[in-house]
Amino acid sequence: MDMLKPLGPSRELIARRAAHAQPEAHARSAAAAVHAEDGRVEVQWRDGRTSPFHHTWLRHNCQCPKCLDSSSGQKLVSILDFPPRPVPRSVSLENGQVVVRWKDGHVSPFPQDFLRRYAYDQQSRHERRAMRRAAVPWTPEVLISESVALEIDYADLMNKDEAVWQWLQQLLKFGYCLIRGVPQQEGEVARVAQRMGQLRDTIYGLTWDVKSIENAANIAYSSLPIPPHMDLMYDAVLGCRFTYALRYYEVPPGYQFLHCLINQAEGGANIFLDTMQVAKVLKERDEKAFRLLATTPATFHYQRSGHHLVQRRPIIELDQETGDASAFRYAPTFEGPLDIEGEKVEEYYAAYRELVRIINQEPDLHLWRRPEEGDLVSFDNRRILHARTAFSNGNRHLQGAYVDWDAFLDRYRVLQSQFAPMAAIPQ
Amino acid sequence: MDMLKPLGPSRELIARRAAHAQPEAHARSAAAAVHAEDGRVEVQWRDGRTSPFHHTWLRHNCQCPKCLDSSSGQKLVSILDFPPRPVPRSVSLENGQVVVRWKDGHVSPFPQDFLRRYAYDQQSRHERRAMRRAAVPWTPEVLISESVALEIDYADLMNKDEAVWQWLQQLLKFGYCLIRGVPQQEGEVARVAQRMGQLRDTIYGLTWDVKSIENAANIAYSSLPIPPHMDLMYDAVLGCRFTYALRYYEVPPGYQFLHCLINQAEGGANIFLDTMQVAKVLKERDEKAFRLLATTPATFHYQRSGHHLVQRRPIIELDQETGDASAFRYAPTFEGPLDIEGEKVEEYYAAYRELVRIINQEPDLHLWRRPEEGDLVSFDNRRILHARTAFSNGNRHLQGAYVDWDAFLDRYRVLQSQFAPMAAIPQ
Repeated sequence: MDMLKPLGPSRELIARRAAHAQPEAHARSAAAAVHAEDGRVEVQWRDGRTSPFHHTWLRHNCQCPKCLDSSSGQKLVSILDFPPRPVPRSVSLENGQVVVRWKDGHVSPFPQDFLRRYAYDQQSRHERRAMRRAAVPWTPEVLISESVALEIDYADLMNKDEAVWQWLQQLLKFGYCLIRGVPQQEGEVARVAQRMGQLRDTIYGLTWDVKSIENAANIAYSSLPIPPHMDLMYDAVLGCRFTYALRYYEVPPGYQFLHCLINQAEGGANIFLDTMQVAKVLKERDEKAFRLLATTPATFHYQRSGHHLVQRRPIIELDQETGDASAFRYAPTFEGPLDIEGEKVEEYYAAYRELVRIINQEPDLHLWRRPEEGDLVSFDNRRILHARTAFSNGNRHLQGAYVDWDAFLDRYRVLQSQFAPMAAIPQ
Repeated sequence: MDMLKPLGPSRELIARRAAHAQPEAHARSAAAAVHAEDGRVEVQWRDGRTSPFHHTWLRHNCQCPKCLDSSSGQKLVSILDFPPRPVPRSVSLENGQVVVRWKDGHVSPFPQDFLRRYAYDQQSRHERRAMRRAAVPWTPEVLISESVALEIDYADLMNKDEAVWQWLQQLLKFGYCLIRGVPQQEGEVARVAQRMGQLRDTIYGLTWDVKSIENAANIAYSSLPIPPHMDLMYDAVLGCRFTYALRYYEVPPGYQFLHCLINQAEGGANIFLDTMQVAKVLKERDEKAFRLLATTPATFHYQRSGHHLVQRRPIIELDQETGDASAFRYAPTFEGPLDIEGEKVEEYYAAYRELVRIINQEPDLHLWRRPEEGDLVSFDNRRILHARTAFSNGNRHLQGAYVDWDAFLDRYRVLQSQFAPMAAIPQ
């Protein structure tokens, strides 16, 4: 199947597409001049940027076939293979390559693209970091105005890499994207998710089923609404034993996929909330509370069926450079006993209360959506909270799957090299 | 198969074993008195410890069946279900339970064991954290003096939970343990690893094979020694395409298992090194370098076969409370271009050089071991570096598998509740 084949177009093809797609970008980021400074080489680019590269950096990242294995891409040179502070004899621009000739006779040719891509001047570094901050906090109002971009057609997604690229960009931006017209067949959720990457195998399999069952052992769950949370909480009978264990993994699954195969029940709408927006509101209202929840670990645990999983992590994960929220961990029903210094306990609870109030009691933040047959919702499980309203027992069948964040970014970078080759590599 | 059954003995059985195993520990940690303080309840234990519990904490962690679902273990009470700073009407010790009667009529009974286990007074918190710091840094000399404890018999491991418990304790302490007498059959590595927990499925399967192949495409790897590293680096032909991808996952696999099925080749010894010891040496020699490597992100990347994985993380991971090393990330051949502020570059390289020198050039740290048929080496992949010396092509077949750290700790806690029920829960 197409989706299972390795993505890779050939290097040549990528280069041709790149040249075709963005000839100006290429020209702008070409090297105009190189000169040696004290302890480093400075490259001046046509767009005016200047990037210094320290001698040690250049020698350690030498791209010659002795230092970098051309077939595996592995680095063959060790830091112990050359002296501290290696000294170049000359630096020159030759046939589009920056060539460093070292005093010990070694020659290091660097393709310009390599240097531009990995330049660590302040501006270049900022551009790379900015990719991960492409998140646009949303309320339903914002989403509705972006609705076209947030829906992707199944046939496009399965057949065109451009559609996958569009999809991943939307997910990076909003953490949410709806796919329409998915055939109502079991296993389709896996085919769609694999357009993003390898499925995450969990204790209950690569895909899982959410069905309403009459006479559920735990009636409370089958009729009561389920409050906003991350991760699965559909049906206590089928899901409970294994489902919740996920929350306690060191790295919760990055993306969740929910395919609606059958929905003949009444009610059972999904509610989605963007924690980037929640964080924004909390930070504006009570910055001290925001900071406390970002620096004090909450406890999540799961203890039954022969398992005992525990994780202590702050609810709000911060971007180290901006200080804004970059991810959340939120699953109130699986919170374990708070385990922090006694003197912080009441202060923490006050901050936590404020957060829960924003999540549960501000309907303006809630995007309501009753799953329609053939819909497949994809969302960032570390950013988007999901909830479910009550539903009356009728035939209802959703099928779900997960893909890790790593796999998402992997695919993102590969497609970017195809469709936007000069863009900074997201990290 | 036995190993695939859920572990769980019944609660009653656990309680009986616990009482049998450590009656004195139980008695010592029984509550002697409770009294209400301003804003909190203080429990005095028979061993002299005093643990305060804030009212909000108690109410939020209420163990009554309305607040905690007895079948799923889920927390049903939300922080919004009770007022800030709830006030008790009375607190008492009744039939071994601490009972809090609240002004609003709610009654919260707490089993003593629950309170003792989750007490957050300074001493109790310290005990819990100390579990993760059980690591004993080792040189081969240290290991040899502990040799009996570091070898476990296959039959014991497969048949007795006590042997598994022994094994996990050794792994927590030394990160390394050898299992002897494993049948030379494919799939045995999975059976052994599953005594610890669920296998980590990777892009190249639940288990993988390391075989020497004549006329390997990349001769360099088949005859040259492989320097110390984390993760797999056995055979370039079979392993290269997928193997290295692992290094770049957000969370590298926690434990690695290597079962020697056939070894008729010459050479091909394994070398193991403890990074806890490496960190200790580095910190003693050059604390500034240690600190730099623990706070500055290195870049690891893998870019081929349609994949582009990138991770930026410090080589040394610090325990936030002690400031000592708690884990490493080290794979020199897959380092990507260093991506840090220019002014730190040379300083970083000097520190990194010092680290590599300790790892590569201090043979006193190297534990040499030629895999023997029927041996199965298990080791912590975030703590222990492994290397391989050259070997001449002969029949050699190892089979490997991974289990995540989460799964390890899960099993550890469950077995601890059986064999050392009053011990602090490792976090």
